[in-house]
Amino acid sequence: MLRVTFLGTSAAAPTAHRNLSAVSVRHEREHYLVDCGEGTQRQMIRCGTGFDVAAIFFTHFHADHYLGAIGFLRTLSMLGRQEPLDLYGPRPARKLLETMLFTGTDRFHFDVRIHEVGPGDAVERLDARFVPFATDHRTPSVGWALVEPARPGRFHPDRALALGVPEGPLFGRLQRGEPVEAGGRVVQPSEVLDPPRPGRTLAVTGDTRPTPATVEAARGADLLVHEATFGDGEQDRALETLHSTAREAGRVAREAGVKRLVLTHLSTRYDQDPSPLAAQAGEEFRNVSVAHDGLTLEVPLA
Amino acid sequence: MLRVTFLGTSAAAPTAHRNLSAVSVRHEREHYLVDCGEGTQRQMIRCGTGFDVAAIFFTHFHADHYLGAIGFLRTLSMLGRQEPLDLYGPRPARKLLETMLFTGTDRFHFDVRIHEVGPGDAVERLDARFVPFATDHRTPSVGWALVEPARPGRFHPDRALALGVPEGPLFGRLQRGEPVEAGGRVVQPSEVLDPPRPGRTLAVTGDTRPTPATVEAARGADLLVHEATFGDGEQDRALETLHSTAREAGRVAREAGVKRLVLTHLSTRYDQDPSPLAAQAGEEFRNVSVAHDGLTLEVPLA
Repeated sequence: MLRVTFLGTSAAAPTAHRNLSAVSVRHEREHYLVDCGEGTQRQMIRCGTGFDVAAIFFTHFHADHYLGAIGFLRTLSMLGRQEPLDLYGPRPARKLLETMLFTGTDRFHFDVRIHEVGPGDAVERLDARFVPFATDHRTPSVGWALVEPARPGRFHPDRALALGVPEGPLFGRLQRGEPVEAGGRVVQPSEVLDPPRPGRTLAVTGDTRPTPATVEAARGADLLVHEATFGDGEQDRALETLHSTAREAGRVAREAGVKRLVLTHLSTRYDQDPSPLAAQAGEEFRNVSVAHDGLTLEVPLA
Repeated sequence: MLRVTFLGTSAAAPTAHRNLSAVSVRHEREHYLVDCGEGTQRQMIRCGTGFDVAAIFFTHFHADHYLGAIGFLRTLSMLGRQEPLDLYGPRPARKLLETMLFTGTDRFHFDVRIHEVGPGDAVERLDARFVPFATDHRTPSVGWALVEPARPGRFHPDRALALGVPEGPLFGRLQRGEPVEAGGRVVQPSEVLDPPRPGRTLAVTGDTRPTPATVEAARGADLLVHEATFGDGEQDRALETLHSTAREAGRVAREAGVKRLVLTHLSTRYDQDPSPLAAQAGEEFRNVSVAHDGLTLEVPLA
């Protein structure tokens, strides 16, 4: 399973229709958040994502991307959570989160583990690697790429039988990539397995100008979630505030050769009608849509 | 005008239907908040209260009552606010708010004035006095009573004319409480004015056990907003966690002789059907209702 739920799709300030930035990512055995703006815990209730979050990956520490973690963690503690929670983010993750999470009158009943990372400091989780990549905003920032390990190639039992390998435990060893002896010779896994299949990749930018590192991290990705605060008419604003236009996000998607692009972090101007952003990005890259709060996407295996 | 809008009516954690504690109070020339839980800025947008808040009165510093101030103030700053904003609350208002508001990467473009108060430290605002009163919770806490000044009694022009006062500026002086000379004698204001009429009183408790100070502060109040986290069946929980039951809130309203009681800060158990709370409080006090998010009440002049 790789399920992405948009919990907040507004830039900077909430609107009646869009809350502040947060994305729920449920992948195999773990549930993550990328960013956690104010009000995220309530959006999780509304969207039915569940509170069983193993880790939060922050893209940067502007208020609209992290304030919701304070209340969410306090609610988790109140609900009796005991499992540790990992928080990953760029500078000043440690100083800022320690101050904001542990100031006040409440105590947590579980371990909060803060990890300060820079671009390239990959994080190994249960079923995927999270790779922070360089973005370009007004404060230290990273995007996050969830990269699944390659899956073994398809196994061909007919070929194994033809090579004299009997059905049973030896099949399993071949599927795990181990050579086995059968029919008086060594049978190599490559004789009975197709080449490994690449795992899925999901990339989420956070706030940023278009960057080469985003193109690299999203190369061939199944899904790229790119910020698109502005439209063509606000290119100057985008340059000035270090955000992206929808068209620029479309270009990043095209250069990276991703399968699908979803735009988020919209200026209030596009709150009710984001169709101009979809159209402008669509001129650069075909498979694009604009997120709304509650949008849930399943990313299928290739 | 005295308009009360409930922005959040849930206890401790938000639900799909109820956000965390906050009440908007619009009184004559000023707009206030009492408490400001996470997500309050978005509730203000939804309820159309406007962002022109002059002061926030905190009842105490549990997370569900103040976290929303952080994001709200940052939004105000982003929107270009320049007017100062006053924050009032009990210990540790100064230390806590300074840390939580000023940690991070953003700066405010307006003055934030933090005032730490204890019970009885009345605050004079433009058109009313805010009086903090003693409540009883697990951390330093106060309730807040908005007390209007008395209004002059009704003026009787017929009596003034009969006493020889000519229509004109002397009428105005009498209405402002000044004696005037007319018809060869001194006319006292009391001869032409009814006795002063008491102003309106609104009392909001925040989280608390029932307290004598609440009864005093709410004596004869037009509206008492009392927390009612629990029902009859959870009296032990109420004692243990220093909250009130709906019945206890009803008794406070009866003892104080208020005109109207509204219950808020409901346990999730009553999220969708608060009628048991209304019924239990109703056995103690007749004019009671349970708040829901978005409920707006106008408190008329007597």
